[in-house]
Amino acid sequence: MSEITTIAESIKPLDESFFTAANERLDSLTKPRGSLGTLEVIASRIVAICEDPRPLLDKKIIFTFAGDHGVTDEGVSAFPKEVTPQMVFNFLAGGAAINVLARQAGADVAVVDIGVDYDFGDAEGLIQKKIVSGTKNMATGPAMTPEEAGRCVEVGIDLALEYADRGYKLFGTGEMGIGNTTPSSAIIACLSGLSPREVTGRGTGVDDAAFENKIKVIEKALEVNSPNKQDAMDVLAKVGGAEIGGIAGLCLGAASRRIPVLVDGFISTAGALIATEIEPKVRDYLFASHKSVERGHQAMLELMNLKPLLDLDLRLGEGSGAALGMNIVEASLRIYKEMATFAEASVSEEEKSNQEKQAN
Amino acid sequence: MSEITTIAESIKPLDESFFTAANERLDSLTKPRGSLGTLEVIASRIVAICEDPRPLLDKKIIFTFAGDHGVTDEGVSAFPKEVTPQMVFNFLAGGAAINVLARQAGADVAVVDIGVDYDFGDAEGLIQKKIVSGTKNMATGPAMTPEEAGRCVEVGIDLALEYADRGYKLFGTGEMGIGNTTPSSAIIACLSGLSPREVTGRGTGVDDAAFENKIKVIEKALEVNSPNKQDAMDVLAKVGGAEIGGIAGLCLGAASRRIPVLVDGFISTAGALIATEIEPKVRDYLFASHKSVERGHQAMLELMNLKPLLDLDLRLGEGSGAALGMNIVEASLRIYKEMATFAEASVSEEEKSNQEKQAN
Repeated sequence: MSEITTIAESIKPLDESFFTAANERLDSLTKPRGSLGTLEVIASRIVAICEDPRPLLDKKIIFTFAGDHGVTDEGVSAFPKEVTPQMVFNFLAGGAAINVLARQAGADVAVVDIGVDYDFGDAEGLIQKKIVSGTKNMATGPAMTPEEAGRCVEVGIDLALEYADRGYKLFGTGEMGIGNTTPSSAIIACLSGLSPREVTGRGTGVDDAAFENKIKVIEKALEVNSPNKQDAMDVLAKVGGAEIGGIAGLCLGAASRRIPVLVDGFISTAGALIATEIEPKVRDYLFASHKSVERGHQAMLELMNLKPLLDLDLRLGEGSGAALGMNIVEASLRIYKEMATFAEASVSEEEKSNQEKQAN
Repeated sequence: MSEITTIAESIKPLDESFFTAANERLDSLTKPRGSLGTLEVIASRIVAICEDPRPLLDKKIIFTFAGDHGVTDEGVSAFPKEVTPQMVFNFLAGGAAINVLARQAGADVAVVDIGVDYDFGDAEGLIQKKIVSGTKNMATGPAMTPEEAGRCVEVGIDLALEYADRGYKLFGTGEMGIGNTTPSSAIIACLSGLSPREVTGRGTGVDDAAFENKIKVIEKALEVNSPNKQDAMDVLAKVGGAEIGGIAGLCLGAASRRIPVLVDGFISTAGALIATEIEPKVRDYLFASHKSVERGHQAMLELMNLKPLLDLDLRLGEGSGAALGMNIVEASLRIYKEMATFAEASVSEEEKSNQEKQAN
């Protein structure tokens, strides 16, 4: 049995009794019931994920997987391919958006080369897990072999297990890869049955002609490769990318260790979708951190029944939305743990409504 | 000339040149242009508000104004009126949601008695600015006299000026007052021309019968008092509340000192709306921190042309959403100040699109 299957089969459903206990505490706090909305929903799910009535998510980390894409030969991005390794160096130097936002969230950043078409030598701080030197051009054939795709997912799983062992309690996903909205749109089109036009956006900002070309390239990639929508690993190999596979593995590994994962935007959600197709129970361990400007994102979130925490018109990636989402998760846990109860604060509780009185 | 008029006339419009300079810097940072969406919009507006190319909003404070409402005699709330002073003690003891969320945001909390129907004696930490001991029942006559309403707004102005002098750079609004969604709905109905039914929600959670009653009470209050929608101070006096007046004053005072204000939810936005009716330029200094569950909130935000930063199904008040919004503001300023530029990080810039090439 492969590592992927073993890990997927080890993922357990959440135990309802933890939700019940968490909701009892939330209802005892000095606020009208449910009045903190999503913060309360997050807190009870984290209690259930961690199986801990007082969860402490003090060690946080964002995994930023970097990979290149042969499909950039088709002119699908506004940025040249060299930007992928340039941005990796920027991550390592601490100057990118993800570094800034992770610092605010009190999170570390793990920068992972899983598929960049560049030799980083012994670049300090880089986690070297290169499986491919860029994918192949999916417009003319499969982006990766089945074996390469499997190894990308295993990289993600192994990182999840390693960082769980090192005491990290909350993960965020992120990525860097010029051209990677194209495979992400291809994945969502294939798995949702929606047309490429319905799930394709402008990425970092291509013009009208390039946008039409991008849709045609995705249509061609799906025709040429005929990915099997019943087999997520086939979809990942044929029209995916190395960093998308790494993110899928990270979600699987995290769920197997009961670690909540903040999923970043469009590309990260494509990775998370691959993971939930492999094992639907993964979904209970995931939080959608924000709603991307990319139009296919909403379709993916609906497929996964996830409601994004933030809607800030972001379209950057890197894990930037996941880092912002960590502040919301921290707020929800602080509310859950630090607020006074009605009894502690000697505050009168809600009067029973007439409906409730009649029901009793 | 009254203090309110003097302060309102001292408010200046924002200077476009600061937006231009801020946007130039944002476009030089290592990310696709505009890809950090709302974070970029916030940063440039704060630069323009502060008239400072490197704004530092290190001292933050939430003002939680507390007041009671005679209209609770009509059975418009699910909680008994005693909860207002009980929650004030909870704020002072640090056990309420606003205390927890302000701690996370690194903000202080100023708890202001502006209209509670309770004698707090010399309660430690309470800012005593009582103008009324609860408003009168607006279903049978004006909630406040014109003079009382004016003094409530002046309390807010004076606090804004005092805390500006003490070095505070970012304000949040908040409130506590059992029954105060009722005057807020009355204010928005009056100023928007929408019917009470269209702008009334369930507050802390009344049942169907109490909800229908609440709408009738608001209709009656508007009939009995005939507030003049061209005169925001008349609306505030007749169908408003002391804490709503305090918030209006805080917004006016903050704008006069070029201090950005994070406006909390439904009740706070009613106060902010009164301020913008008095002086429309106030609007440029306000950020809507979140979109409340209360249905009239969206209508108010549209009147003020403000887009909420968060949508977390909150309906608590106190300043809880403003505290959460402070994390977003901090993220936007960190991005603006800490990210590396393309030149600093040796990252290639976006290729010019064909459209841009042709235009050049």
